[in-house]
Amino acid sequence: MTTLAPVRTIAIFGGGQLGLMLANAARPLGIRSVFLEDAPNCPAALAGEVMTNADYDKFANACDTFTLEFENTPLSSAQGIESHAKLYPPSQALFIAQDRLNEKNLFNELGITTVPFLAVNSQDELNAACEKLGLPLVLKTTRGGYDGKGQFVIRTQDDIKTAWAELGDATKSAPLIAEGFINFSREVSLIAVRAQDGDIRYYPLVENTHHNGILAKTVAPAPSAEHLNEQAQSSIKKLLEHLNYVGVMTLELFVTDSGLIANEIAPRVHNSGHWSIEGAVCSQFENHMRAVAGLPLGSTDIIKPSVMLNVIGKYPNLQDVLAIDGVHFHHYHKDERDGRKIGHITIMCDELEETVLKVEQLLK
Amino acid sequence: MTTLAPVRTIAIFGGGQLGLMLANAARPLGIRSVFLEDAPNCPAALAGEVMTNADYDKFANACDTFTLEFENTPLSSAQGIESHAKLYPPSQALFIAQDRLNEKNLFNELGITTVPFLAVNSQDELNAACEKLGLPLVLKTTRGGYDGKGQFVIRTQDDIKTAWAELGDATKSAPLIAEGFINFSREVSLIAVRAQDGDIRYYPLVENTHHNGILAKTVAPAPSAEHLNEQAQSSIKKLLEHLNYVGVMTLELFVTDSGLIANEIAPRVHNSGHWSIEGAVCSQFENHMRAVAGLPLGSTDIIKPSVMLNVIGKYPNLQDVLAIDGVHFHHYHKDERDGRKIGHITIMCDELEETVLKVEQLLK
Repeated sequence: MTTLAPVRTIAIFGGGQLGLMLANAARPLGIRSVFLEDAPNCPAALAGEVMTNADYDKFANACDTFTLEFENTPLSSAQGIESHAKLYPPSQALFIAQDRLNEKNLFNELGITTVPFLAVNSQDELNAACEKLGLPLVLKTTRGGYDGKGQFVIRTQDDIKTAWAELGDATKSAPLIAEGFINFSREVSLIAVRAQDGDIRYYPLVENTHHNGILAKTVAPAPSAEHLNEQAQSSIKKLLEHLNYVGVMTLELFVTDSGLIANEIAPRVHNSGHWSIEGAVCSQFENHMRAVAGLPLGSTDIIKPSVMLNVIGKYPNLQDVLAIDGVHFHHYHKDERDGRKIGHITIMCDELEETVLKVEQLLK
Repeated sequence: MTTLAPVRTIAIFGGGQLGLMLANAARPLGIRSVFLEDAPNCPAALAGEVMTNADYDKFANACDTFTLEFENTPLSSAQGIESHAKLYPPSQALFIAQDRLNEKNLFNELGITTVPFLAVNSQDELNAACEKLGLPLVLKTTRGGYDGKGQFVIRTQDDIKTAWAELGDATKSAPLIAEGFINFSREVSLIAVRAQDGDIRYYPLVENTHHNGILAKTVAPAPSAEHLNEQAQSSIKKLLEHLNYVGVMTLELFVTDSGLIANEIAPRVHNSGHWSIEGAVCSQFENHMRAVAGLPLGSTDIIKPSVMLNVIGKYPNLQDVLAIDGVHFHHYHKDERDGRKIGHITIMCDELEETVLKVEQLLK
């Protein structure tokens, strides 16, 4: 007697490499993924059916459980889904994460330390903010910035006008935020996952290095950061519980002399968690899909220290890279373009530092 | 400036779970897979385009490099592909592996120990074989048997006639083989991979347990078997080099008081290597596709001892199974049917034996 395979479908807003990796992690759990994505030849097309916004109704009725890999999923779409199906994380998490002011206000409301900040809606308010917060400061759009875009560092009085011209005039629909400048020694991030029953698991803090505002390297776990885990976990726990969050959340933090300062959250799996595919017992991708599907969470224990390097703009020679033992290549099948994330490499081996140096040479 | 993604296609004979796992391992290397498979809803359809035999010409012209996951790929098709494209492993490996007589003759030619055996083409020859090899013996079809099918154990004189009626009359097109019975303490298998430049890597010997002729459990590495690796590696090396083989080959062996006895080879990735997805630095699937694509091989080192359990016939309750840390579930999206392999579970954790017992309970 044959019984139909017990499989289910989960629909994902977005179809980039995060979607591809979510679908790859979900398939062995008996879950198929479909995607909402307008970009032709998107990476997720390699792992499930892609529907465009022209087919939005089909997407919205594809199944009873939805999630997202695209942080800027329109809030109205998320709310529309919530009116008839399950959406994890909830749209309220998008409302917070899509706006730096909402985000920092919630951080402070929950007792999570941030840099001092002020909303800026006019050049006068910008002048006042510069006086109150002092220079240098960072002026940012509250919405839509990523990979270092939509930011301006104001170092001198002369910069104020330029900054306003560049960001204020260009973003009339959104307010700006002025953030006090801080001296930090390094950037770290914490990835946590919360299940439908409230169970929370934390990956270890990892250390991130950016080049030109784009993540270049993640070291997992972050060196000499064991003592910081407790504070970071306590912060993300407050956010997860306040939002009744389900799925993976990422919290980016600065390490300063006076402790951790929260920068921002991502309501999704994160580039700084890619190492977990090989380096953790259960990856961020599998744990996110387990949470969304209502399954028990997997262990976030680290198997072995690992380093993730992004492949940006151009693919290296695979013959050279794969000749190094302990190197795991992740090709996103994306066209090459300056500044674009088109793959990543996870290195997990005994002589970790030397091997990372070798691979970094090959990526130059 | 945008440059097209440097991706390539590899075409695979067969579209079962082995094809699915090969494609999953190849994608991060920038390789897309297409499959030749007539079964509707085959697992590989989740990972690439599937073409049926009605579309054979399209398949044969899909790319310049071919491989297989289906051991009984017709020899004529393999030879046809070799006439205009690259096929790894070569068709000669199929010629050997598809016929127990060819296989055992080659083993002996290369000095690899087998059980004593005789070809059987008639009931008279069967009688003679029983006299020469003694009883009990195993009568097998030379071609097409798998998972214990096409075999008959002759224990008494009375069994001879029944065995001939069952196998001889039913397989008029193929000769039979009579194999001397041996007392073995356990079954092990060795998986090795050979690159286009002749580089060979070996996974550790693993121990296999069968139920009703179907693989139920693999323990990696095989307990107390370190001393057997050298002999097994030397045997498979001879086979790989004799056949100018490229890709993964599996050698099944019996452990007896007088050493290892070779049983058969599979010219492909193998169920007893599924643990390597989590348990080895580079899995059998990735290493096979690396070899086929002409890329350097990855490390076959074991990360941590692991145990693989097949999911046969019916899926267990995922809630229960995934609640156990260190359990990796692999759902093949196949319909449930008695005796059918529809998934596997790899267990990799500190309390390995206790955890395996727990999971085995859930599979009952």
